Amino acid sequence: MLVSQNVEELTPYQPGKPVKEVERELGIRDTIKLASNENPLGASPKATAAVLAMAHEANRYPEGGCYYLRKKLAALLQLQEENLVFGNGSNEIIELVIRTFVLPGEEILFFDPSFAVYPIIAKAADRDFRAVPLRQDSFEMNVDDMLAAIGPRTKALFITTPNNPVGNYIPHGELVRLISATPANVLVCVDEAYVEYATEGDCRTVIDLVLQYENLLIMRTFSKAYGLSGYRIGYGVGSPKIINYLNKTRQPFNVNLLAQTAAEAALDDREFLDASVGNNSREMQRIVDCISLLGLTHVPSQANFILIDTLGPGRPVFEGLLREGVIVRHIPHPMIANFVRVTVGTPAENSIFLEKFAKVLRQEGRLAN
Amino acid sequence: MLVSQNVEELTPYQPGKPVKEVERELGIRDTIKLASNENPLGASPKATAAVLAMAHEANRYPEGGCYYLRKKLAALLQLQEENLVFGNGSNEIIELVIRTFVLPGEEILFFDPSFAVYPIIAKAADRDFRAVPLRQDSFEMNVDDMLAAIGPRTKALFITTPNNPVGNYIPHGELVRLISATPANVLVCVDEAYVEYATEGDCRTVIDLVLQYENLLIMRTFSKAYGLSGYRIGYGVGSPKIINYLNKTRQPFNVNLLAQTAAEAALDDREFLDASVGNNSREMQRIVDCISLLGLTHVPSQANFILIDTLGPGRPVFEGLLREGVIVRHIPHPMIANFVRVTVGTPAENSIFLEKFAKVLRQEGRLAN
Repeated sequence: MLVSQNVEELTPYQPGKPVKEVERELGIRDTIKLASNENPLGASPKATAAVLAMAHEANRYPEGGCYYLRKKLAALLQLQEENLVFGNGSNEIIELVIRTFVLPGEEILFFDPSFAVYPIIAKAADRDFRAVPLRQDSFEMNVDDMLAAIGPRTKALFITTPNNPVGNYIPHGELVRLISATPANVLVCVDEAYVEYATEGDCRTVIDLVLQYENLLIMRTFSKAYGLSGYRIGYGVGSPKIINYLNKTRQPFNVNLLAQTAAEAALDDREFLDASVGNNSREMQRIVDCISLLGLTHVPSQANFILIDTLGPGRPVFEGLLREGVIVRHIPHPMIANFVRVTVGTPAENSIFLEKFAKVLRQEGRLAN
Repeated sequence: MLVSQNVEELTPYQPGKPVKEVERELGIRDTIKLASNENPLGASPKATAAVLAMAHEANRYPEGGCYYLRKKLAALLQLQEENLVFGNGSNEIIELVIRTFVLPGEEILFFDPSFAVYPIIAKAADRDFRAVPLRQDSFEMNVDDMLAAIGPRTKALFITTPNNPVGNYIPHGELVRLISATPANVLVCVDEAYVEYATEGDCRTVIDLVLQYENLLIMRTFSKAYGLSGYRIGYGVGSPKIINYLNKTRQPFNVNLLAQTAAEAALDDREFLDASVGNNSREMQRIVDCISLLGLTHVPSQANFILIDTLGPGRPVFEGLLREGVIVRHIPHPMIANFVRVTVGTPAENSIFLEKFAKVLRQEGRLAN
């Protein structure tokens, strides 16, 4: 047998065409991309400046342990360096967790829909998984549903909060209850990719709990609020025991030199972080106000995107917007088939989106003219 | 059980301290690093220029399929895009191959010593491995030794030629014989990280053979002759069947945006490639001439480094050079315990190395004063 049955069954990722190629094919231009939850304000300017100053030295291998970045981040989080592991994006942390801790015959659990890569990575690693459905209509990530799903083969839970692609979150008290009620031999992996954008008081990080729960791992990324998606850098925060195993199985040079430089500088760029979070909350409110005026509903979001009900199948709305030069995301999941997921852009981008969105919905006959 | 026995037994990679930290501790400065087979001329200037022009756009995720780089490289190699897979360094290609094709109970084979990561990756993936020793004294990678080692559990051979850390190579005819004599159900993975530096006529790439052998995979890197170590980008070349499986198991955004940009520009930088290869062959000859005058022997090298016999244990020579501000590599392998591996530097760096090397060998009493 050349590969495992699980790998045989995997669909290779079909890369989308670059925006430039899509524009050429559709005869459009000045396309707006609100599809990947990127930072519309760009990359942290301090990060960019730091990279410009060292790019000519990129003939050197990166630090194998993210030496300077690790020191700075540990101090910032008021944790030890031994609590941190860095990855080629937080996706690599997810992959390392599954490959390191989930043994043959064991399984992972996650809410569904949530971040789409959990089952893909599990399958590629020839490991089992089970999805715990969100509550119908409310999209709630119900903690008791997750706890009830834990079985003898369960090795790790993956919890995305705020949840992608939905935008909602598990309130802090409930999240703490989930962590404390999970058996100690099951890892709780909390993906906090969007937590910097949260404005609700009970939507907040649980990083401080890694000192209390040895089976807790937090995943963070520089791809969102810091604007460093292109660099590929994220990190895991956990007990020294868990982190040490991940450092055993990662490759020494998994995080590139420019990403380390950029992330270190971005941590100092409080101004950019504040501007990013500020733009997001102001513009999120404006989008909500406008779509409400149109009579549309949405899922309240603590992230940098919003899931909007299109009053019918979301796919044609996605396609209509694409022809208008606005790229959003339609996720082919039965529970959210009528929705599109829209990243909050700049004020100008959002204005164009809102105009085109109303236009497409009218064309589709879903809004009165 | 939290992790597999193999992972339990792994030693986490102990990252070396940054050069700046070493200098501070030892009270030295202007250290020369000839330890990691990096390009002493820097990064390709065209690559750096391309990155400077787009770094402010690094808030965007990279192309999932290295769209433009793939097109350019396929044309350059006169192959199809389906023959190529890109990785976060060629290390990731090695890891993907082992995780994708080597099933539980199967094993990989490699010459020993050769690139140190093969057994580490196999162990992290909970897979078996066997080492085929180089021929004593000659360090020959004997093709019949490798063919004889192939057993019923063998799934992949990893062949580094030119060989790191030795510098020697398998002559083209012998390499073709190895490939053609290997059973079709065993992958032959040829790591050509250093092939751009080769000057001998029978030390050359076997990329063209991927059209003939479906079980052949070539690994290449941008870290050496192109000077892009810090970016982390390498690639695999093989049959569409093999490549398709690797594209199934890799993460969609495994290669960062800046690396794609840099690599694409570096492929156009023929001038830099020629300068790098030219410097290497001229300076390699000068190093050989100088150490020969000192009465020292070495392994003839087709790579960008040279393995030199220190006439006694190599470790104290490595340490003596470090105190003199010259970082080379001593590899704790019984077959080469008396050697140090030295990356070919710039003319100025090599002059300093040669001076300090003679000084340390005299201090150690290995050379007459």
